[in-house]
Amino acid sequence: MASSSHGPPEIAMELHALNRAKLVHSFRQYLKASSLPLFGFILLQGGGEQSRYCSDHVPLFRQESYFAYLFGVREPGFYGAIDVSIGKSVLFAPRLTEDYAIWSGKIKPLSSFKERYMVSLVCYSDEITEVLKSHYRGPGKPLLYLLHGLNTDSNKFSTPAKFEGIEAFQTDMTSLHPILSEIRVLKSELEISLIKYANDISSAAHIEVMQKSKVGMKEYQLEMIFLHHIYMHGGCRHCSYTCICATGENSAFIHYGHAAAPNDRTLEDGDIALMDMGAEYHFYASDVACSFPVNGKFTDDQRLVYNAVLKAHNAVLSTMKPGVNWIDMHKLAEKNILESLVAGGILVGEVDSMMEERLGAVFMPHGIGHFLGLDAHDPGGYPKGTERPTEPGLKALRTTRELKECMVITVQPGCYFNDVLLMPAMENPNTSKFFNQEAIERFRKFGGVRIESVVHVTSNGCENLTDLPRETWEIEAVMAGASWPLDSETIQKYKSTSSSSSSVAPEAPATEVST
Amino acid sequence: MASSSHGPPEIAMELHALNRAKLVHSFRQYLKASSLPLFGFILLQGGGEQSRYCSDHVPLFRQESYFAYLFGVREPGFYGAIDVSIGKSVLFAPRLTEDYAIWSGKIKPLSSFKERYMVSLVCYSDEITEVLKSHYRGPGKPLLYLLHGLNTDSNKFSTPAKFEGIEAFQTDMTSLHPILSEIRVLKSELEISLIKYANDISSAAHIEVMQKSKVGMKEYQLEMIFLHHIYMHGGCRHCSYTCICATGENSAFIHYGHAAAPNDRTLEDGDIALMDMGAEYHFYASDVACSFPVNGKFTDDQRLVYNAVLKAHNAVLSTMKPGVNWIDMHKLAEKNILESLVAGGILVGEVDSMMEERLGAVFMPHGIGHFLGLDAHDPGGYPKGTERPTEPGLKALRTTRELKECMVITVQPGCYFNDVLLMPAMENPNTSKFFNQEAIERFRKFGGVRIESVVHVTSNGCENLTDLPRETWEIEAVMAGASWPLDSETIQKYKSTSSSSSSVAPEAPATEVST
Repeated sequence: MASSSHGPPEIAMELHALNRAKLVHSFRQYLKASSLPLFGFILLQGGGEQSRYCSDHVPLFRQESYFAYLFGVREPGFYGAIDVSIGKSVLFAPRLTEDYAIWSGKIKPLSSFKERYMVSLVCYSDEITEVLKSHYRGPGKPLLYLLHGLNTDSNKFSTPAKFEGIEAFQTDMTSLHPILSEIRVLKSELEISLIKYANDISSAAHIEVMQKSKVGMKEYQLEMIFLHHIYMHGGCRHCSYTCICATGENSAFIHYGHAAAPNDRTLEDGDIALMDMGAEYHFYASDVACSFPVNGKFTDDQRLVYNAVLKAHNAVLSTMKPGVNWIDMHKLAEKNILESLVAGGILVGEVDSMMEERLGAVFMPHGIGHFLGLDAHDPGGYPKGTERPTEPGLKALRTTRELKECMVITVQPGCYFNDVLLMPAMENPNTSKFFNQEAIERFRKFGGVRIESVVHVTSNGCENLTDLPRETWEIEAVMAGASWPLDSETIQKYKSTSSSSSSVAPEAPATEVST
Repeated sequence: MASSSHGPPEIAMELHALNRAKLVHSFRQYLKASSLPLFGFILLQGGGEQSRYCSDHVPLFRQESYFAYLFGVREPGFYGAIDVSIGKSVLFAPRLTEDYAIWSGKIKPLSSFKERYMVSLVCYSDEITEVLKSHYRGPGKPLLYLLHGLNTDSNKFSTPAKFEGIEAFQTDMTSLHPILSEIRVLKSELEISLIKYANDISSAAHIEVMQKSKVGMKEYQLEMIFLHHIYMHGGCRHCSYTCICATGENSAFIHYGHAAAPNDRTLEDGDIALMDMGAEYHFYASDVACSFPVNGKFTDDQRLVYNAVLKAHNAVLSTMKPGVNWIDMHKLAEKNILESLVAGGILVGEVDSMMEERLGAVFMPHGIGHFLGLDAHDPGGYPKGTERPTEPGLKALRTTRELKECMVITVQPGCYFNDVLLMPAMENPNTSKFFNQEAIERFRKFGGVRIESVVHVTSNGCENLTDLPRETWEIEAVMAGASWPLDSETIQKYKSTSSSSSSVAPEAPATEVST
């Protein structure tokens, strides 16, 4: 039973005031650079509760992320405006009926929202027109900057605010989205501390999952151990994404765990497990993947693939710093994986030739990592004018940008054995020569391995916000009951065992992780 | 740690075939009675995955309930048709791309859906037009019966199926909804056994919540104990509704626990807890509420209010049988609660006069219960032509129908102390005389009590599908560590303690529950 003694941290709501200040600063720079007047309101509409199809079942509301970024409001039905000329913010709250006070809770005074969300003014949403008109400092029709733009991960457009009376305003639908998306890319210290917390609790939950994993359990029981840990001990009611609890062959599918493949397999002896689960805390995400043998002991083949992925993970982490190009990091990971597969006898030939043929994409069809913030796949990956690559593997990258200080990005190399990708590559005359057909046969039902950490780019390197046993011997120690971090006795015991049994993967030593 | 040895039961998929057969039978009766030809297809569109706002975050998909009722399909993107003339069913599955096989899972052959969902034929959804045209047995344009009608709980309309090529068909939007909704009202044995299972696991989870409840915990930790139990031990990934984990004053709000009131209060000594949580299993709901003192011992005031509600609960259960009117059950519950409040000295005067003034609605503003099935609030409560009452309390009823055998309906009396309702009633010259102002003052911060069971109407009475400690002494025994059901020694020990301390509520004896 959890005590609430080591509960979740207080939330510093000035985080959102700072986000707004950053936006106002950038937005005024843009207006000045465009010789536009410094008047008008940035206006966003928060999310509303949606019922399930025609029923009155209402899934738990989660605020829209742009709105959450600027205002931190957890309640549905709000609008938020920022006066570009003076930087002050107004929230517009829904006017609740007496029914609300019977069914849903006490109706809070507007002053309580003003205090909690640190804005200059709170009015009712049916007063938007009146309030914005009366506060407008420019000439003519008041100008609203609305949010409209493409999310390059979903290919969907954000929905600009709508309200009764909007026809009394001029609206600009193009200026806000690129500026606000760009601001979300660079995280403040307060944001990073929330992401760090989400990672800490997720890391601890992953360790509990490893420790309780047993042959005969169901995948969804591992999911529940994670969910239990993050909510019970961490106060995290939401996950950043649907839990991926893949074992055995299922681990070959990158986004397993959804309704059509619902984590319902029984764990078998000899299975690899690929757990990709992340807690969300006060809107901020984590995105963490671990891979381990469900029975607690790596087989030689598991160790080979695992160490290939770990080597890639560590190589990227040791190279990341401002100025580094993300495509290069993707290729660095691919190269490390291919080299290990050659060393392990699964592939044969020159790694450079394999790279030219984009063979890495057969084993790692997804990108090496993505921005993370209020969304697991945070926006800003492809600012207007930048092009998505078209080559296998690279086309799956959610960003191709150069790293900058204060970016938070995941590093998630993976190596999968999926017939849909393997078969064509093994039949293709340009790539068939690279495969040791006999060796690859051993891996046809293997599944896959992914290691994912959340990484904060610092001024001269990077900081891994995810704290987990990553070496095979560390995982084996923890799964045998050792607590994390390991004490020196345990390190001595397991590390030595490891070096004697690592002969199958001599190319995959324990690489120092840059922190 | 849960073992998977007592895991969730196998799902009898013929349940859905039976649901379809019932629909075809009723629909043909309707066609015959309306002198319409026995041709055409009933066509429904299943739900699709929706991403969160503009992002690529996809909340876990849950099938639309009418579609789930007829086909049991857990995957998104399907259509289902039933040939009215011969009763055969066709499912139309989405044609998945190679990307799916990389990201989401193996692409299953159509034959696997045919087998799992027990239909006559499975085709791709881009073949609907072609397939339905070729199977049509009538003259002229093929006729489609589409689902369109009002949900009387949400006031929203179901969305009729849409697909490319639909203009080649005649469509009927009015016939299907009332017939299908009515069929959902009477449950088959297979449906009842799923509802029973959802109730069994929910009941066991509620007991674990009671047993682990401790002063100093957070409300959301009680939520997590419940969620953990139903998924870990019961395989229930969904709840039927957002968990209501209200303690202290929060328990006065009927649907506490949503995003704006997110189960985040700390449990205090002397609090009442009102836990309303239900697991869903293979689409079928449970809806169970328990109330208990967080410290495990009822105070006299808590016992008074609790026993008032329990007496109402038991009175309704002992009266329910086919032919009984649901408004009468609502009034029976109100009367019992008012009588107990008079006996406890909170109210003064004639209960009949209170009933005339609808005073019951001040303490129980919601209805006494609702149909339950694939939705916690199952449809069919107000068939076309029936009117919703307008009087306080009664207007909140989700149905006013006469009970019929095979209905499944909840019994959920409650007694709340909410200023929004109390103050006007205490100031109203018609009702102020009923209040013992001094006594009521003690309850201003009390919150409320609700007891909710899921009840199956049998041929000559009813069966309570919820199995929980309901007497105050049973709850105290279980919260002190006794396992449920109680053994005879525990019964002897706690029941005798109870009778000595029940002097404050002499009007609320342990009523026999009809089972």
